[in-house]
Amino acid sequence: MARPSNRDKILAEGLKVVHERGFASASVREIAQAAQVPLGSFTNHFASKEAFGLEILDLYYEQSHALLAVTLLNEALPPLERIELYIDRTIAKLHDKEMRGGCLLGNFGAEVTDHCEAMRHRLIAIFEEIRQALIHALRAAVTAGDLPADFDCEDTAGFMFASLQGAILISKTLRNDIPMQRYKRQVFGRILH
Amino acid sequence: MARPSNRDKILAEGLKVVHERGFASASVREIAQAAQVPLGSFTNHFASKEAFGLEILDLYYEQSHALLAVTLLNEALPPLERIELYIDRTIAKLHDKEMRGGCLLGNFGAEVTDHCEAMRHRLIAIFEEIRQALIHALRAAVTAGDLPADFDCEDTAGFMFASLQGAILISKTLRNDIPMQRYKRQVFGRILH
Repeated sequence: MARPSNRDKILAEGLKVVHERGFASASVREIAQAAQVPLGSFTNHFASKEAFGLEILDLYYEQSHALLAVTLLNEALPPLERIELYIDRTIAKLHDKEMRGGCLLGNFGAEVTDHCEAMRHRLIAIFEEIRQALIHALRAAVTAGDLPADFDCEDTAGFMFASLQGAILISKTLRNDIPMQRYKRQVFGRILH
Repeated sequence: MARPSNRDKILAEGLKVVHERGFASASVREIAQAAQVPLGSFTNHFASKEAFGLEILDLYYEQSHALLAVTLLNEALPPLERIELYIDRTIAKLHDKEMRGGCLLGNFGAEVTDHCEAMRHRLIAIFEEIRQALIHALRAAVTAGDLPADFDCEDTAGFMFASLQGAILISKTLRNDIPMQRYKRQVFGRILH
């Protein structure tokens, strides 16, 4: 197996540093140190911190997309179970980091969208992909007869996505999963009821 | 009328700078420049940037609390109208800033809670006050017969608060109010239906 390049090390370790410290707080020096590469290596590989930010966004979304594939987009599961699994896996991921860090996508939404149009547009595209995965699962639930035929899948998916981001944000602040469990109860007790 | 002190100027202008640029991005130098005070004035008045952060959090919450008083806590209005007004005023505030900036409370939730326990605890207390105002309006709606007697006001208020933060976050990213309008539709069409 090929050794990871300095570029790959900067991306993998830099993603962790930014997720823990925030994009503005994480200095290029800290990122290079975490990746165990010389500081000059960062500037060799990335034209700017923003260029690096776009790449870690894509790297993070690769993981998020893998989660969508085994949950919301997983045709082997009944539609509503896909949604439940998506929420449960999201809660488990938060616990993996001891309820710190939250969702990098939401953090970037709060922190960088007012200052970097390229990252804002990339986030918009990612948010839309996640909403489309939710729409896909909701439409399957309509087809399966689990939701009424006139159910507004588009609107509900947008609401469910935004509300999940809100639940993650408040859970991160409280450092417990009460807002996530509440989200799950309301989604299944009321929104999809 | 007394002239504002340097301390007041730093807080008022610093709040604007942090809301626009983020807490980590806003340097003490920029804050002092915006307030038109010497750099040393900041360090005279605030023991640390965190101490300043706590004070602008309180200053921002004064405005948020004033909004709660005329909406959710306003006994002169029918309960569900209070909630509608709260959402509408929140949307209007986002438009005032051309859909930029979002909510400072949510931004701090994303950006500072992993790094400053004092700010995290202050945010938790503020979040709880807002949730209590929502509970108050929902309980009044139950009393008025607008919601069923067994309606879970506590759980729903927590969900509505977190989901509103999510809607603000996504609206800020999209730079339009579609997620906010969607939030309002789902709250009145499904959650409080």
